[in-house]
Amino acid sequence: MAELAGNCLIGQSGGPTAVINASVAGIVSEALNHGCIEEVYGALNGVLGLVNEDLVDLAAESQQAIRGLRFTPGAALGSCRTKLKKPQDIERALEVLKTHNVRYYFHIGDADSQETAAKLAELAKAQGYELRVIGVPKTIDNDLSVTDHCPGYGSAAKFIATTVRELAVDGDATAQNDLVTIVEVMGRNTGWLAAAATLAKRRDHPNDPPHLVYVPEVAFDDAKFADDVRRILKREKHCVIVVGEGLVDKDGNYVAVEAGEAGGAAQFGGVGDHLRGIVETQVGAKVRVARLGVAQRAAAHVASKTDADEAFLAGQAAVKAAINGESEKMITLVRGDGDHYTCETGLAAFADIVGNVKKLPREWINEDGVSLNFQFYRYATPLIQGEVTVPFENGLPAFVRLHGETVDKQLPGYEV
Amino acid sequence: MAELAGNCLIGQSGGPTAVINASVAGIVSEALNHGCIEEVYGALNGVLGLVNEDLVDLAAESQQAIRGLRFTPGAALGSCRTKLKKPQDIERALEVLKTHNVRYYFHIGDADSQETAAKLAELAKAQGYELRVIGVPKTIDNDLSVTDHCPGYGSAAKFIATTVRELAVDGDATAQNDLVTIVEVMGRNTGWLAAAATLAKRRDHPNDPPHLVYVPEVAFDDAKFADDVRRILKREKHCVIVVGEGLVDKDGNYVAVEAGEAGGAAQFGGVGDHLRGIVETQVGAKVRVARLGVAQRAAAHVASKTDADEAFLAGQAAVKAAINGESEKMITLVRGDGDHYTCETGLAAFADIVGNVKKLPREWINEDGVSLNFQFYRYATPLIQGEVTVPFENGLPAFVRLHGETVDKQLPGYEV
Repeated sequence: MAELAGNCLIGQSGGPTAVINASVAGIVSEALNHGCIEEVYGALNGVLGLVNEDLVDLAAESQQAIRGLRFTPGAALGSCRTKLKKPQDIERALEVLKTHNVRYYFHIGDADSQETAAKLAELAKAQGYELRVIGVPKTIDNDLSVTDHCPGYGSAAKFIATTVRELAVDGDATAQNDLVTIVEVMGRNTGWLAAAATLAKRRDHPNDPPHLVYVPEVAFDDAKFADDVRRILKREKHCVIVVGEGLVDKDGNYVAVEAGEAGGAAQFGGVGDHLRGIVETQVGAKVRVARLGVAQRAAAHVASKTDADEAFLAGQAAVKAAINGESEKMITLVRGDGDHYTCETGLAAFADIVGNVKKLPREWINEDGVSLNFQFYRYATPLIQGEVTVPFENGLPAFVRLHGETVDKQLPGYEV
Repeated sequence: MAELAGNCLIGQSGGPTAVINASVAGIVSEALNHGCIEEVYGALNGVLGLVNEDLVDLAAESQQAIRGLRFTPGAALGSCRTKLKKPQDIERALEVLKTHNVRYYFHIGDADSQETAAKLAELAKAQGYELRVIGVPKTIDNDLSVTDHCPGYGSAAKFIATTVRELAVDGDATAQNDLVTIVEVMGRNTGWLAAAATLAKRRDHPNDPPHLVYVPEVAFDDAKFADDVRRILKREKHCVIVVGEGLVDKDGNYVAVEAGEAGGAAQFGGVGDHLRGIVETQVGAKVRVARLGVAQRAAAHVASKTDADEAFLAGQAAVKAAINGESEKMITLVRGDGDHYTCETGLAAFADIVGNVKKLPREWINEDGVSLNFQFYRYATPLIQGEVTVPFENGLPAFVRLHGETVDKQLPGYEV
């Protein structure tokens, strides 16, 4: 295969995770190993930077800064939720790539955003412009079907399980009578994050908190919920409940209006407050609700080392795959078959990714509908192992910011 | 002074903090240094254990367990919010102490709960029973007037500032247009915790998030709030707001019904959601709200080493003071005068503690009413320094539990 010489460009998309920048670090580090990659650019705010020609020179960043990306949350290049839908937007994006001789485009994002990358690749092919496009997965939701798990999930899981363990200890200390702690976590359509809270249980202590976990995969029923809580409060003074924001009833309707990030009007109270209402009126116990919100995807100070290392690895693998001539594929994480956890990268065609939401397997959920069995523990436990060493300065995590040296624009302006 | 031989008893009271157990560790460690202290007991669930004669033998705990208390959140002995109000309750408590030859009683709690300790000491004196009672302060609210600061505050401050910094980084990455992040923190009557969020700013970067901090010491006004947010959004795409739950208007009324721990009916949405409503209707920006809740006082995984060490020191100092013949006093933290932060312990009479709420000094708040000046930074920065090394096992913080060897009851039962 002929070597393809030219520049590479990295874009980040969608909601950040604690480790999405680790994938940038992996791409930059690996790109510098390959002479055929000349410049290493970043697109500011994902596809917006692409169409607006807002590029920065990542090779000009200090080693320190690139290294710091391995423990810095947020999206260092900026992200966006914009999708390029109009054909002329894709044409413009390709024009920008051509103008800057970009031959390698690495897109770090969730399933939806890989669609844009796929369109870009198709158009380049149609125009006979040699371009290799490789996607790198990221999402705390862990709902991508083609990969064993997604970079970002392990760290969110670790934060949630840590916080649930801490809230449980706190509640156990204060509960003389019935006390219910409800923790509302993210996960719009799947229960991966809520399920992760069960990792807070010690081994061989199934009665440890959290006592009840409600996931979107199991239809929610108010009366059964009240019964569940009553059952636990017969045994425990303090009942810890974890609930995924995307809970649905038997007809598939959301149980509560979400108080999500988008924030329209009159969104007071999410599913946690809905459950609070049931406990207060039907069970008659004291309730406290914690809504972890965006902290779940930003808590780099307690990130999983396994997750951060795999995010870095996925970035490296993307470059290696492109150098090897691959394109229109996304990096996947492939778990080894052995008893001891191992993880390698693989590749999945873009065409196989989009639209497939991976739900929590029903057979991993116990018959009670509110707890997970050993299959989930076996799956999730390795993903939260190890702690990322975050440097603290003056008492707080010292995250890095990129210098962001601008690449000169060569094209006239463009409106998305 | 004649040596007083007998047993000692430790009780914990009120809401736990990340370091309240470090004070227990300090008391136990120091007590074992003094031959005149024979047995080291703990009262389960504070004064409830006292009247119910629910005592455990802390000297029987392993070294490992006592050491582990230095990084374990919650209240290892259990806590309670019960106050002994009836004279016969105090009489019963004293009877329990006498029965178990307790001559030293150490009470770890906030201002309110020191009142019970004071009553116990008075009754003992009246009955001619030699008993030394020393209080150890704890509260994340930091509102005790006689001490420079309170054990528990530094760790809550560190967690809040860390989380605000992470949320800010996350929001900065995603904001293409106006985005407002509201973080609701505890602090029923004072702004110490909300103010702590400003530590998230880097030195010499006054425009860093958080951009607006609302504390109960400054009367809240809806119209001014909307103006504040508009002003920030002229300069920034992402406005980070921190708000204390106990915000009051110019007439001293709470701005929003609290969704606090006690959890009565119809408490959907606290002050954070109230502010969200104003931003959405009057400013027209996207809003996301995080309610950190009890995590603020339980987040031992990111506790301040300074705070944990001082909590331990306060426990040790309580024993030394009692051995020296002191009683009816609470340990205080006394800051040195030098430029370099130092902290020693002092003593304050119980009579001087109760009912004095220490507010954030008005002169530490800038004229804009939404930011803190150098005096606050100088005060609070040393309190969040250093990280407690929490052992992680299987990916999560490995907190300890006391074995809790029961001390045989010798009295008939009693109902509070």
